[in-house]
Formats: sequence, C-alpha cells, structure tokens
Amino acid sequence: MAKLNKLEDIVSLCKRRGFIFQSSEIYGGLASCYDYGPLGSELKRNVRNAWWKSTVQMRDDVVGLDSSILMHPMVWKSSGHADKFADLITECRKCHTRTRIDHLLNQEGKKAEDIGQDPRIISDKVCPNCGAVGEFTEPMAFKLMFETQMGANADDNMAVYLRPETAQGIFANFRNVLDSTRVKVPFGIAQIGKSFRNEVTTKAFIFRTREFEQAELEFFCEPGTDEQWYEFWKEKRFNWYVEYGINKDNLRMRDHDSDELAHYAKACIDVEYRFPFGSGDWQELEGVANRTDYDLRRHQQGMRSMNNFIESGRDLAKVELKDEQPDYHKGPLSFFDEQKKQRYIPYVIEPSAGVDRSTLAFLVDAYDEEEVKGETRNLLRFHPDIAPIKAAVFPLVKKEGMPEIAHNIVDSLRAHWNVFYDQKGAIGRRYRRQDEAGTPFCITVDGQVKEDGTVTVRDRDTMAQERVHQDKLSAYLFEKMSCWGKQ
Amino acid sequence: MAKLNKLEDIVSLCKRRGFIFQSSEIYGGLASCYDYGPLGSELKRNVRNAWWKSTVQMRDDVVGLDSSILMHPMVWKSSGHADKFADLITECRKCHTRTRIDHLLNQEGKKAEDIGQDPRIISDKVCPNCGAVGEFTEPMAFKLMFETQMGANADDNMAVYLRPETAQGIFANFRNVLDSTRVKVPFGIAQIGKSFRNEVTTKAFIFRTREFEQAELEFFCEPGTDEQWYEFWKEKRFNWYVEYGINKDNLRMRDHDSDELAHYAKACIDVEYRFPFGSGDWQELEGVANRTDYDLRRHQQGMRSMNNFIESGRDLAKVELKDEQPDYHKGPLSFFDEQKKQRYIPYVIEPSAGVDRSTLAFLVDAYDEEEVKGETRNLLRFHPDIAPIKAAVFPLVKKEGMPEIAHNIVDSLRAHWNVFYDQKGAIGRRYRRQDEAGTPFCITVDGQVKEDGTVTVRDRDTMAQERVHQDKLSAYLFEKMSCWGKQ
Repeated sequence: MAKLNKLEDIVSLCKRRGFIFQSSEIYGGLASCYDYGPLGSELKRNVRNAWWKSTVQMRDDVVGLDSSILMHPMVWKSSGHADKFADLITECRKCHTRTRIDHLLNQEGKKAEDIGQDPRIISDKVCPNCGAVGEFTEPMAFKLMFETQMGANADDNMAVYLRPETAQGIFANFRNVLDSTRVKVPFGIAQIGKSFRNEVTTKAFIFRTREFEQAELEFFCEPGTDEQWYEFWKEKRFNWYVEYGINKDNLRMRDHDSDELAHYAKACIDVEYRFPFGSGDWQELEGVANRTDYDLRRHQQGMRSMNNFIESGRDLAKVELKDEQPDYHKGPLSFFDEQKKQRYIPYVIEPSAGVDRSTLAFLVDAYDEEEVKGETRNLLRFHPDIAPIKAAVFPLVKKEGMPEIAHNIVDSLRAHWNVFYDQKGAIGRRYRRQDEAGTPFCITVDGQVKEDGTVTVRDRDTMAQERVHQDKLSAYLFEKMSCWGKQ
Repeated sequence: MAKLNKLEDIVSLCKRRGFIFQSSEIYGGLASCYDYGPLGSELKRNVRNAWWKSTVQMRDDVVGLDSSILMHPMVWKSSGHADKFADLITECRKCHTRTRIDHLLNQEGKKAEDIGQDPRIISDKVCPNCGAVGEFTEPMAFKLMFETQMGANADDNMAVYLRPETAQGIFANFRNVLDSTRVKVPFGIAQIGKSFRNEVTTKAFIFRTREFEQAELEFFCEPGTDEQWYEFWKEKRFNWYVEYGINKDNLRMRDHDSDELAHYAKACIDVEYRFPFGSGDWQELEGVANRTDYDLRRHQQGMRSMNNFIESGRDLAKVELKDEQPDYHKGPLSFFDEQKKQRYIPYVIEPSAGVDRSTLAFLVDAYDEEEVKGETRNLLRFHPDIAPIKAAVFPLVKKEGMPEIAHNIVDSLRAHWNVFYDQKGAIGRRYRRQDEAGTPFCITVDGQVKEDGTVTVRDRDTMAQERVHQDKLSAYLFEKMSCWGKQ
C-alpha cells in the first residue's frame, strides 16, 4: 500500500506539507529538536486529545494532572535518575568522537551483545567516525539529564534538571491528589507533557530526540491485583492505536527480556510500530510496565532525607537517602483502604506513550498512493478524530453567490471542527490537495444549491459523493464521524 | 460578590480543590513552579482550547505551530535576548541577598522611579532582607535565560537556552510556513507552550513564575496596515476574556507609557485583570504589541552571521551580528505580494497571553458565595466551555436500578464531555460539591424515570431544576451550552 519506503520520503513529506520541520532550520537546524507546522500541530493536538479522551475523560477511575518541567532536585535523587540515569561512553583518541559503548561494533560489524561478549570490552571495537580500532579512552558515565541553575541568590540558587520523564511529577503529587479529590485505589493519574534527555547518540528524524513529548498514566492498584491491571492496560493501550486507525498488522507487543527489565520492574512490554522503510523497522511507540511500589517507596525515603540534602550543600552527588523504615507501608505515600481497614503502598502500572512517535506512526500508517484514471493519487487515510482538517468547503466557481454560501457553511461548521475554505484552482486539484492533507470530507457548493439547497459531500477514501442539504451538514458529519470504521 | 479578598484565600482554594499545587511540595516545594491538579489541569486545558478555537480554528487567516523549547542559540542572538535579556541586580554586603536594583526602596519606602531619581543610585537604598542601608555591591547584569549544555561531543556540544518566550519559534518558522502552506499576508501563526525565565524576584503564587505557559499569536501584515490590525487584535483579545465569562468591570486595557515600550515596539497595551485581594490588584494577563518588522529583520541578520557564530567557537557573547543589507526587504524572510508585485518584510502584531494567569483569573472571577436557606453556598460560575466538569450524574438512591441508569447516562454523555458520577452522600451535599467545582449541570436519576423516562437537570447558577427525558440529555446540554450567556 504505502510507498514511503525510505526515511527520506517521510522526512520530505513532513516538511513539504507542513507537518514537521527541523527546529531552527534557518540557522542550520538544532540537532534532535523538531517543530510541528500548521498540519502537524493540529495532528499532534488530535493525538493528545484522543489519548486524553480515552485515558481520562471516558473513565471514572483516572484523573488528570499537569505538573511542571522543573522540579525539586530531590525528586531525581529519589527516582534514581540523579545517580543512575547515564550512558557509559568512550572517546576515540584519534578523532575525539564520543560513542555509547553499547553502540560500538567490532570489525565484523557486530555488537558485544550480538556475540555474547561483555559489553565493557571495547579494545576490539571500531570508531564509527574515523574507523580507528581499539583507540578508546576508559569508559565514563555521561549524565542524560539536562542541568541548569535556578535562582539568583546564594540561598536559593541550585542546580535543577529538566525532567527526563513526566511520571515523577505524578508520584510527587500522589498525596495531593488523594487529599484534594475523592479517588480511591484503584485509580490513575494521567498527564501529557515535554521531557528532555541529553542523548549521546540521537537517531534519525524524530526517533530519538533530546526534547520529546510523553503521555503517561500511573495507575495505582492494590498489591496482588497488579498483574491483572497490567494485562488490562497492555490490551487497552494496544487497542487504542487500532481504534484510531493504525493497521493491526503494523503493530506488535514485545515483552522485555529479563535482562532488559529495569531492576524495580516486575514486567514490561513495548508496543511497537513497523515503520515502512528498509525491510520494516520496528520502533517503540509506548512501554507498559509494572513498576511495583518502587517509586512511592523511594519518594518516602527521599522525603525523610531532606536534611541530608540541605547538609550536603544541595549537592545531589553527596546526598545519601536514608534507609527505609520498617513500617514504610504506613508512610505519607501510603493508602488506607477503608473497607479492608488496611494501609499499604499501592503498586503502579505505567503505560508511557511517546507522543511524537505516535504522531508519526499515525501519519505514516495513513499514507497511501493509488492509481485513479491513470494518475497517482496521494492521500492520508486518517481517522476523522486524528485528521488535522475535518472538512474542506469549496464553491465550484467564484460566482453566482457560491463563495458566499460556502463561507456560510464554513462559519456554521467551524464552531465544531477545524474547517478549511478553498476557492482556488480546478475542483479536481482542490480535492487532491485535501486528500494529501488527509481531510475526510470535501463539501462543494454548486449550481444545484439554488434549486434544492443541497451541496455535495465527497468521501476522501471512496471518492463517492452524496448530496446533502446545507442545513443538515453538521448532523451528517457528526453521524459519519461517530460511526467511522464501525460498519 | 466574591469573598476571596486575600491571596491566601485563593491559594487555599486552589490547593483544597485540586486546582493548583506548589511543585514538589513533598520536598518543601520548588520556588516559583506550580502543578495543576485534577480540576486545574482540566480548567487549563479548557483555557488553552478556548484560545486555540478563537485564534486558530474560527479563522481563515491563522495557522497553528508547535515549536520546540530548545532552539539554536543564534535565535537568541538575533532576538536580542542573549545580550539584553538581563536584570541589573546588586548584592547586600551584609547578608548577601541579591535584589533587582529597580525593586530597592529608600528609607521612606520609595523606589527611585517614584521620586524621579536615577535608578542606578543605590547608596540610599535599604536591603529588603536585613535592612542594611547602602551596603550594596556594584550592580551587575543577571541573565534571565536558563542555560544548559547540549550534546556529548566536542563538535556538537554547546550552550543552549530554555526559550524565554514562544514567539521566536514562530519567527524562525515564518519561511517554513510560507513554503508549506498557501497562506498570504495578512496572516498569523499561533502557538501555545511553556517558557522559562530565571526571575531574580519571583512574585507570590503564580503571578511571576520561572516556568510558565504562553499563548502567542504573531500576526503578519503589510506595513501601513499595522495600526489597524493592532486595533483589531486589542479589541478581539479583550473581548475573548469577556466572552468566556470574565466580568468586564474587572478587566482593563492599559497603554504602555513611551518609556515602558520596548525600543522596537511602536505601541503596546496590557490587558489587566483586577484580582480581588487588597484594594484590587491589577495584574497583566496579556500584552498586545505592534512589533513592526524588527524580529524578521533581525533574524535575517542572524542568518547572514552564522559564520561569525562558528568562528566565535559558538560563544554568543563574542558573536557580532552582520549589518543589515540595503536590500534587506528582499531577504529570505520577506513576502512577495503577487497582486501588488511588491516584496516587503511584514509588520507583526503580537497578542501574547499568559495561560497561567488567565486560568487563575477565570477561577477567581467565577468564585462566588451566596446565602441559601441560612447556609453559605460556595460556587464557581464558570462558562461551560471553561468548566472542568460539564455535568455530574447522580442516582438519588443506591437502589431500584437508579445507579445503573445513571451509569448509562454517564456513558452516553462522556463521548462529548467530561462527566462525573457520584452516588455518595445526601443529594444536597452532592450538589454543593459540584457547585464548588463549577459544574454547570447536575443530572439526578430519581423514581420518576421508571414512569416517564425523565430525570432532573439542575442549573448551577439558578439552582432551578427541569425534567428532561434521558434520551434527550445530549441535545439538551448542547443547546444550553451553545446559547450560554446569550439570553
């Protein structure tokens, strides 16, 4: 179906149609940061809204949150990021390029893990930049959190970090949410926002970027029910991509091997999408993990260690977290189950989606080319909820009152949806432009409107046209969109 | 009307009801960063969506953008932020507190500007922390942009900055938007996103924070039409606040004095809201400025100066921007008017709104207390589009099939709106809880539903109840919401 079989095709489509641009392109670009253009920003908004609707709005047991990017440094001590969130890298003595040691290849083009070798052995590896063999410095830890200084005064100045994940903002607010609402375990807290990681090796286009957007849910449940909730969220999240139009054949769930699992995680799967370049490149869209009670317990330790932070001169490297108390399950981040008269630290199931990659997957999966009367038609078969523009309205010709009627239609539909008006060029070309933008409906005002009040509505996918009375357009579109894909 | 007459009342309301929390509160809080809780995150989403709808969706001449927070450093050289975006501060020699020199008071409690004194005179000023007089170091420039290091390699490592405004992401994409869409001047590019400023002095609560969210529009127009577009956007933006429910009497437009104007700005007004503490504290919600062609011209200079940046070793302090070329109006950021066969750099009108302050203004303005049968009723009179929850559904009692019917109603309404189910406590108390959350409609399922299929719908503001058939609820609510405030 789709003929985007090179990454360059996708990048070119994104740029040409105003979906995604390289950041700061007029200055040669900023590596690994991207901007969403007119169609891209609408597409991404729709992806966010579809996630929010499914995860928060449609559920009794999930509430929303929007926490800040800059947080207290102790958050990252407790979460483990301050100490452990680093890549082991080495520098080539010849050309001074730095590389993650787990990305180095030997002269046969194999990674250490491919040949069952200890990944710390680098003496047989090749510099990916200059080709020198074994000319590496001792491996060193490269911190992945972006650090900055906050405050002007000696007494409030301190190093703070751009959050590397939104999840910790949720854990830090667990108590606040319990105290200000009437939620009871099991329940979830969801948020969408930017995160930042100073990746050593960035990947092409938006596949591994230093600034990215996450949609994360932390779902708190009673220990013992965690495996069942894990299964629930795996399935729920996989189906979300299908529900919004991604072909099931291009999606898979991949279980983490035990050596891939974070030490605190009981289980984790990745939802992966097969991007169409090469022989099909499976990339992670989302991880779903059973994080146990690790995070809340660590934050309880952190809360008890604040004097260590102050005494260290606010130097995270010098802070030791205090040991956990024997009755930690009664701590400030515990939950009291009134029915069972029991207090415990909830377990957490975390579905964590990448908004940028999902957006790209929706775009790539929707892309299609087909032959129509000897010409190639390019189109984006977006689900209507995902499509940047829901309907375009055209006067057939720029006279006989048609533009005025078309404008009135635009005005009446705009209160509900993003609608586009176009009066320029042959009608066939206007249809093609909207096909390329993925607009599901094109409404054309022709001469017949004067006779019976009807206009044509063209379906993007079938190109079939129906006559609909101009007063019935809202209802017609509501109906079509709400039963999309359900026939 | 409202009885929030102290800032503490507002802070307390925000925390108690889950609107706004101090960031990282479990670690004693992070100065000047805030988190939005379950009700607050919905409220803020609605404020963003109302802005986007009015500014982008409802208009033919504005497109959206979503650019990255980290941008190429040269963006900030061109914009002027790298050199000029700093506060003059001084440090007290006694207690080492740093203060902006323009915030210092003399022994009579007056600022330099109040008594027509040169603001650089600090020898007669009092340290706000320890009270020492004239014990200050030489004033120094304190940079307001947060700086961080990006990249692991010597050849890509450089200092980058957290954007202090979203506007520059728009200017940097002006060319990309022209090339990927069919917009023509006059047109605008709009975006919503986080910005960061390392303020020396933060203000109480969310009034001056270091992390904040902006909703900015850059509207590009032909020079000569700029004054008319400036008037248009002033009025349009002022009315937006009124349209979504803020009392006109609490809003004003304040023209900037000539000495307050940025050197490149031709005119600027602030839209201010009167917060109800003290004797009424007018705070800026939004600025509308005529920025002329300053930004695009500066970026053209910056684009020509990239070799200076490379040669400086990527040190912005050492970069000199090249002079502007005589034919700058034909440069890469110019626009060609095909009808007039003329090329020019557009002028820019910029309405720049603070999302956090607007959110708080909507909250504070909606707050009300009234006596009902000898009891005080607290309520938030939100416009329905702004209200975090649109409708709550209650079974009168937890039996006779009422909870099941109520759940069915919730399911049918949830596809459209954020809806809340509550079966706990006396019905009166359930109404009061929703009044406090600002929910405009409460739907109660009582015994009569079995007889004629009707339920009651209670209006938050009048407390009047109507019986509506359960199958007609969506249509009823759509109708009520769409003509809200229009009778």
